[in-house]
Amino acid sequence: MKGERRYTLTASCPDQVGIVARVAQFIAGLGGWILETNFHAEPPDEQNPSGRFFMRIEVRADSLPLPLVELRRRFAEEVAPALAMQWRITDSAVKKRVVILVSKQEHCLYDLLARWHAGELDVEIPCVISNHETLRGIVEWHGIPFVHVPVSPERKAIAFAEIARLFEEVKGDVMVLARYMQILPPDLCDAYAGQIINIHHSFLPSFVGARPYHQAWARGVKLIGATCHYVTAELDQGPIIEQDVIRIDHTDTPEEMIRSGKDIEKAVLARGLRYHIEDRVLVHGHRTIVFR
Amino acid sequence: MKGERRYTLTASCPDQVGIVARVAQFIAGLGGWILETNFHAEPPDEQNPSGRFFMRIEVRADSLPLPLVELRRRFAEEVAPALAMQWRITDSAVKKRVVILVSKQEHCLYDLLARWHAGELDVEIPCVISNHETLRGIVEWHGIPFVHVPVSPERKAIAFAEIARLFEEVKGDVMVLARYMQILPPDLCDAYAGQIINIHHSFLPSFVGARPYHQAWARGVKLIGATCHYVTAELDQGPIIEQDVIRIDHTDTPEEMIRSGKDIEKAVLARGLRYHIEDRVLVHGHRTIVFR
Amino acid sequence: MKGERRYTLTASCPDQVGIVARVAQFIAGLGGWILETNFHAEPPDEQNPSGRFFMRIEVRADSLPLPLVELRRRFAEEVAPALAMQWRITDSAVKKRVVILVSKQEHCLYDLLARWHAGELDVEIPCVISNHETLRGIVEWHGIPFVHVPVSPERKAIAFAEIARLFEEVKGDVMVLARYMQILPPDLCDAYAGQIINIHHSFLPSFVGARPYHQAWARGVKLIGATCHYVTAELDQGPIIEQDVIRIDHTDTPEEMIRSGKDIEKAVLARGLRYHIEDRVLVHGHRTIVFR
Amino acid sequence: MKGERRYTLTASCPDQVGIVARVAQFIAGLGGWILETNFHAEPPDEQNPSGRFFMRIEVRADSLPLPLVELRRRFAEEVAPALAMQWRITDSAVKKRVVILVSKQEHCLYDLLARWHAGELDVEIPCVISNHETLRGIVEWHGIPFVHVPVSPERKAIAFAEIARLFEEVKGDVMVLARYMQILPPDLCDAYAGQIINIHHSFLPSFVGARPYHQAWARGVKLIGATCHYVTAELDQGPIIEQDVIRIDHTDTPEEMIRSGKDIEKAVLARGLRYHIEDRVLVHGHRTIVFR
Repeated sequence: MKGERRYTLTASCPDQVGIVARVAQFIAGLGGWILETNFHAEPPDEQNPSGRFFMRIEVRADSLPLPLVELRRRFAEEVAPALAMQWRITDSAVKKRVVILVSKQEHCLYDLLARWHAGELDVEIPCVISNHETLRGIVEWHGIPFVHVPVSPERKAIAFAEIARLFEEVKGDVMVLARYMQILPPDLCDAYAGQIINIHHSFLPSFVGARPYHQAWARGVKLIGATCHYVTAELDQGPIIEQDVIRIDHTDTPEEMIRSGKDIEKAVLARGLRYHIEDRVLVHGHRTIVFR
Repeated sequence: MKGERRYTLTASCPDQVGIVARVAQFIAGLGGWILETNFHAEPPDEQNPSGRFFMRIEVRADSLPLPLVELRRRFAEEVAPALAMQWRITDSAVKKRVVILVSKQEHCLYDLLARWHAGELDVEIPCVISNHETLRGIVEWHGIPFVHVPVSPERKAIAFAEIARLFEEVKGDVMVLARYMQILPPDLCDAYAGQIINIHHSFLPSFVGARPYHQAWARGVKLIGATCHYVTAELDQGPIIEQDVIRIDHTDTPEEMIRSGKDIEKAVLARGLRYHIEDRVLVHGHRTIVFR
Repeated sequence: MKGERRYTLTASCPDQVGIVARVAQFIAGLGGWILETNFHAEPPDEQNPSGRFFMRIEVRADSLPLPLVELRRRFAEEVAPALAMQWRITDSAVKKRVVILVSKQEHCLYDLLARWHAGELDVEIPCVISNHETLRGIVEWHGIPFVHVPVSPERKAIAFAEIARLFEEVKGDVMVLARYMQILPPDLCDAYAGQIINIHHSFLPSFVGARPYHQAWARGVKLIGATCHYVTAELDQGPIIEQDVIRIDHTDTPEEMIRSGKDIEKAVLARGLRYHIEDRVLVHGHRTIVFR
Repeated sequence: MKGERRYTLTASCPDQVGIVARVAQFIAGLGGWILETNFHAEPPDEQNPSGRFFMRIEVRADSLPLPLVELRRRFAEEVAPALAMQWRITDSAVKKRVVILVSKQEHCLYDLLARWHAGELDVEIPCVISNHETLRGIVEWHGIPFVHVPVSPERKAIAFAEIARLFEEVKGDVMVLARYMQILPPDLCDAYAGQIINIHHSFLPSFVGARPYHQAWARGVKLIGATCHYVTAELDQGPIIEQDVIRIDHTDTPEEMIRSGKDIEKAVLARGLRYHIEDRVLVHGHRTIVFR
C-alpha cells in the first residue's frame, strides 16, 4: 500500500475482444485516475475454451465522484454482466484483518509482528490463535489477543470449529499459518478457499515423508527453499504464491539447514502475505496470477 | 516472442484520466485480440508535471482487419494527437536487426551466437564488427559477415564514422556492445540513443578507475555483478535495463572473479537484449520501464 | 554453534612451509579431535612479503586432557612463537556478549531478538543502547536492559564515552550497530577495531550523499543490496563480512525500495553477526577471510 | 586452475585423531608449499562408525624435490596405509580429458565449447559423441572430432558398448552428458561411477513423468532450477554436485520456462564440471563434499 487512498478492482472473466476497453471506459467515464493496472490472459483450457482474462486496477479514491457502495453497484450493473465477470473492489482505507495461527516456532510470528509494529504491514491482527501457550507473551506484549485452542486428536473437530468461529467472530479476511503444525480439515480448507495462507519448506528435488531436512541432507542438496501457498484440501498442493531458496553446502548439518530454512520461510511468507493483502494474487485452478 | 504474429504498441504520454480507455477502445473497435498488456505511471517531475504514462500492448495480428500501415495511420490520426503520445507499433514478423560489436573477449559473443543459432534469439545479425581479427572464425562459421574496423587513436573518428555507416547500410535496429573495449564518441551515442546496449561489470560498492576487479578483491567484496544498460555520452551512466550478481568469497583470486564476472555478464546481456528486442524497455530520463 | 562444547583456534601468521603440520601435530599430540578446519593463504603484499596464512580449527573440548587455560599456555609456548603467529582460542561454552545499538528503526533489532529468543543466536545480550526511547518496550519485554544515551551534537563526545564505558562495564565482546543512525568517532572505531559490526544499504552502482534510495530510484537500478562490515574510522569503508541483494523493478517506489532494503539488511546482518560470533571472520587489511 | 603447476591430493579415510597432522607433516617434511587446503568430517553412519574424513590439498609442484611418481609411491607407503586412506594425487599439468555427449540441444555444448575456446576451461576434449548428426558442424569447426553413435531401441547395447570403447580409446577422464537425451544402462553407470556428469532440470516441488515444464507451469511454480549430478543406475538420483534456480512468473509460458531452464542448466553444468575437473568433488554415499 503506498500513500493515498485507493480502490482496487480485481476481476477475471472469459477472454474476449474489448474487455480492457469496457472496464477502462467505465473508470474513465467516472473521471477515475488509474494508479496501477495489470492485465493477464491465460490460455484456453477445458473449463475456459476461450482462455480466461485477469485484471487488477488501482484507482485513486478521491478522483471518483461517488461513494464505494455506489461504485460497486454501477460496476455490477454496467460492466460485470456482459463480461460474465467475477470481481471485487476493495478499499485501501479498510485494513485487512489477518488472523495468525502458530504453534511453538516463533520465527515467522516475530517477523510478522515486527512488520506490523513498524507500520510496514498495513493490516489489523484481531487475534493470534495457537495450539500451545508458548508464544502468548510476545503476542500479548504487542496488545494483540492470544487465543489458546488446544488440538488433541480426539477433539480435532471441536478445535477447528472453534477456530472457524473465532475467524468469523473477529471478521477475519485471511488466516496465516505461520508454522502452524496442524493439518486443517478439508471442510475448513474448502470453506475458506483462497483465504488461508501457509508456508512450508521446499527442496529440489522434493522429499516426501518424515524429517525432510534430514532426507535433503542425506542427498546432499545445495539449495533449500520455501513455498508460500494457499491451503487446499490436498496437503501442500495448493496454488503457489511465492517461492525462494537459500544456498547451503556440505558443511551444513541438518540443524543448520533447518535454521537457514527458517530464514527463507519468514522472508517468503512475508512477501506472499503482502501480495495477498494488496489484492495482487488471483487464483486460476492450481495456478496463481501474482500482479507484483 | 511467442508463437503467433503480433503487433506491439509501445507508447508514452503525459498522464491523464482516460488513456487506457482510449487506447483499448481503439483496439477493441477494430476487433483486436489483446495478448499482453502493460501499463505504468511514473510520478510527476519537472518535465512531466502530471506524471508520465507508459504502455505496451501486444495484439494478435490476424485479429485485425487492416494492414499494419493502415493501423499505424489510424492510430496516428485517431489516438495519438489527443494524448500527445510518443508511440510506435512493431511487427513480430519483422525481425530486429542486431549489429554486434566485439573486441577479443568471446564469452558474450558465443552466448549470443548460440542463442541465435538455436532459434532462441529471434533476430537477424547482419554483421559483427570488431576492432580485432580475433573472432572472425567463429562468426563466419555461423554464416555472418565479420567486419574488421581497427580503432587506432589517430583514426578514431574515421573508425566510428565507418561503424555508423555500416549500421545504416545493414539497416541495423540495435547495436550490442558485447565486451567491445572502445569508448563510443558522444555524437554516436546521441545519434543512436536507446539503440546501443552495453554490458559492464558492477560491484557493491562500485570502484572507479583501472582494474576494478583487483580493487574489488582488495576490498573483499562478496558479490560481483553486471549491468546491461543503454549507452549515453556519460560513460556507463545510461539507463539500466537489467542487473544481476554472483556470489564469490575470499578464496577467489581476481582472475577467478573475472571469470565469474564473465558468467554473469553474458547472462545479463542476453536478458537485457531480449527485453529490448521484444520492445519491453521504455526509457524515461535515466530510468527504464521494463515490462517483463 | 552446533552441539558439543568446542574450542576454536583462529590464527594468522606469515606464510611458510609447515604451518599446518605444526599446528595439527600440536593438536594431535594432545589427542584433540578436530571437528572443523579451515586454512587460507593470502598472496604476498608489501606488509607480507611471503603472503599471510589464516586458519580456524574447532576441536572437541572433551577430547583434550587439559583445561583451556593450560591449552592456551602450551600453544603460546610451543607453537605460536616459531610461526610469529597472532592467535586466540575461544570456548563455545562461553557465550559472546553482544551489545546492540539502535535508533528508531526496529527491523534489525526485532530480527536479532527473535533469533536470540528462539535460542538460534547463542549469545548473551547484556544491554541494548539507543539514542532514542522508541524501542525500550520490546527490549525490556525480553528481559534485556535498555539504556538511553542521547547523542545531541554538543554532547557527542560524552555520549560515546558513555557507550564505551557501558561496553566495558558489561564486558561486551562485540557491538552491533543495528541501524544505529549516528557516526561513531574515529577513536572509538580504532579502540574496538574488528569488534563493531555495522549494516548498511548497498547498490550497483553506489550512490554517495543524501537519500541514496531516491538516487537509486532515479537511476532505475534493478537490485538493491546490503553490506555487513566492520566499522573503521573511514565511514562505511571497513572490511566486508557479508553482502546480499534483492531484486526490484520500475514499479517499486523509493518507499518500497526502502522496505525491500530492510528485508535484505536484516538477513545480511544476522548472517554476518553469526559468522563473527562463531569466530569465522578473520580480518586482513581491508579484506576479510570468512570461513563459513 | 590458477597459474602455477600444482599437485592436488584428494583423500578420505575413517575419522580419527591426527589425520591432518600426519598428512601435513608428510608434505612439510618434503618442503611442500601448500596453496589450498580443505578438510571436512562427515558424521558417523552405519558404514563409518567413527565418521569419515575428507581432504583436498594443493601443493605447489616446484616446491617438492621429487617427481610425482615418487611422491605417490612415498604417500602410498608412508601415509595411506596407517589411515586406511582412499586417495589420489593429480597434476595440474596433465589436463583432464572430457568426453562430451550431446543430442540435438546445443545450449550446454556451445557454452562448454566457448569456455574451452577461451582457455577458461582448462581441459582436453578428445571427442564429442552424439546420437544425432545435428551438432557436427560447430564441434568440427572447433577442431574436435565428432562421433555419431546412433541409439535405436534395438541396438542400444551395441551403442553404449561403442561409447564405452570410445571413452577408453581416447583415455577419457570424465563423460559429460550435455543434454544427452538417452538413459545410460546401469552397467555403464556402475563402470564409471563418479566419472559421468549429468545436468537436468529441477523444480520445487519436483514433477515426475512427462513434460515436467508443463506440469510446473500448471502448478504455477515461481522458480525453476537445474541440478548437476553424478550419474548412477538410479535415474537422476546420483550425488548432487551443484544446483541453482532462476525466477519466473505467471507471464512465462512453458516455452519460456524451458528457455530460462536452459540458461540455468548451462550455468550449473559449467560450475559443476569445473568443480569436478579441479578435483573439488568427493563423493560420500549419496552426498558430495564440494571444496569450492
